[in-house]
Amino acid sequence: MRIGVLLAELKIPENIGFVARAMKNFGFSELYLFNCNVTEQSYITSSHAKDILENAVQLERFEDILKHANILIGTTGVTAKAQERYIRKPIFSPEELREFLERKEGGRAVIAFGREDYGLFDEELELCHMLVTIPTNPEYPVMNVSHAVAVILYELSKGKFKTEEKVFATAEDVENLVKSFERLMRTVWYPNHRIDRTKIALRRILGRSLITRRELTVLHGIVTKTITYVEKLKKELENCKR
Amino acid sequence: MRIGVLLAELKIPENIGFVARAMKNFGFSELYLFNCNVTEQSYITSSHAKDILENAVQLERFEDILKHANILIGTTGVTAKAQERYIRKPIFSPEELREFLERKEGGRAVIAFGREDYGLFDEELELCHMLVTIPTNPEYPVMNVSHAVAVILYELSKGKFKTEEKVFATAEDVENLVKSFERLMRTVWYPNHRIDRTKIALRRILGRSLITRRELTVLHGIVTKTITYVEKLKKELENCKR
Repeated sequence: MRIGVLLAELKIPENIGFVARAMKNFGFSELYLFNCNVTEQSYITSSHAKDILENAVQLERFEDILKHANILIGTTGVTAKAQERYIRKPIFSPEELREFLERKEGGRAVIAFGREDYGLFDEELELCHMLVTIPTNPEYPVMNVSHAVAVILYELSKGKFKTEEKVFATAEDVENLVKSFERLMRTVWYPNHRIDRTKIALRRILGRSLITRRELTVLHGIVTKTITYVEKLKKELENCKR
Repeated sequence: MRIGVLLAELKIPENIGFVARAMKNFGFSELYLFNCNVTEQSYITSSHAKDILENAVQLERFEDILKHANILIGTTGVTAKAQERYIRKPIFSPEELREFLERKEGGRAVIAFGREDYGLFDEELELCHMLVTIPTNPEYPVMNVSHAVAVILYELSKGKFKTEEKVFATAEDVENLVKSFERLMRTVWYPNHRIDRTKIALRRILGRSLITRRELTVLHGIVTKTITYVEKLKKELENCKR
């Protein structure tokens, strides 16, 4: 499903720009503006997302969004708990919204964000097909609107941009390294009675460290290099003594 | 594990305040500042999180954080792909960081965020035990620093603040409603040959709508009320005709 963002009556120009920037960061571009205070400042805070501001669709009335959206999603900082009114129920988390939208194909979902001081009006929330709230600290739940947009778009973009594939070392890889350490210990005449407990400590440290194969190779490198060097020294010393 | 935030040499006062606000929104309070430009503006954008700014620990050098942290996590907008240097690998997603921290008990993890224009320096990243990046649009990966903080703290706070428990209708509940609709159709002499396909449409619409039990009760309400009213009318008419 395509995803658009609707901003309703934002007064602070910087916020509108920050929203455009966050949209571009997470690969979204369809912006709808209902009576927002876009100024030069908005373009400055949008940074490299000026195109999103320029191409934004202006709406005369909030309900004009219904022509553009197949599903309209309202955001609210006031949770159902705080406000027991029917209009606020049921309320979904950003994660639940993502799971829901992942099942839909085609069409456009528009996520609406309201005024800095008031959010969306009740009449606007009534028009929405789904309500979303970001779970926040009940002591201070009111987020800056551009941060709320960033968080929701981050959640919705999950899986869209891949991070590096990490190849973690298996327990067997770790065990091989532990054995190399054992060889090192024996090579340097590490006290025999300490070897077992040292192996256990190494196994646990490495096992808990989320070590990648690549990092493990680095460790293996120093251990085997040290062993080879020590063995070489030993031989030289032997030859010298003869 | 306790979680702190370290900001390194932020120049824009507003950003520092926005970070404090986002921290409070997600229930975090331990802020460390290394050479940040905190001004009156920071206090304004922090909104109701002034206490976090006031209680922030000032560091003289970046490496002073090592005294406070058990695990130091570096953030970077430059992904491993973009920069093939060893220092940037392995790199974790915010989700992977959360899963990792959830397994740890005790101690403090500090997440470091760098300069607006440059992020963390390589020497700073080298000191970190774990690197994290937010998966973003490769065409414009550079996020505003306070947005990056908000996104990461949102991810790390998952499960901390509960949203409303929603009780979704089961397929059986939906089936009962479909049966009520059938009764309504028969009551109003809806064409017999259309009843089956209408039931299928209803079943599918309701099944796909993530309907809660509460919402279902509302629908049930209109259907049964209509049936009762129609039956009553029918009887009155019968009596009247006699």
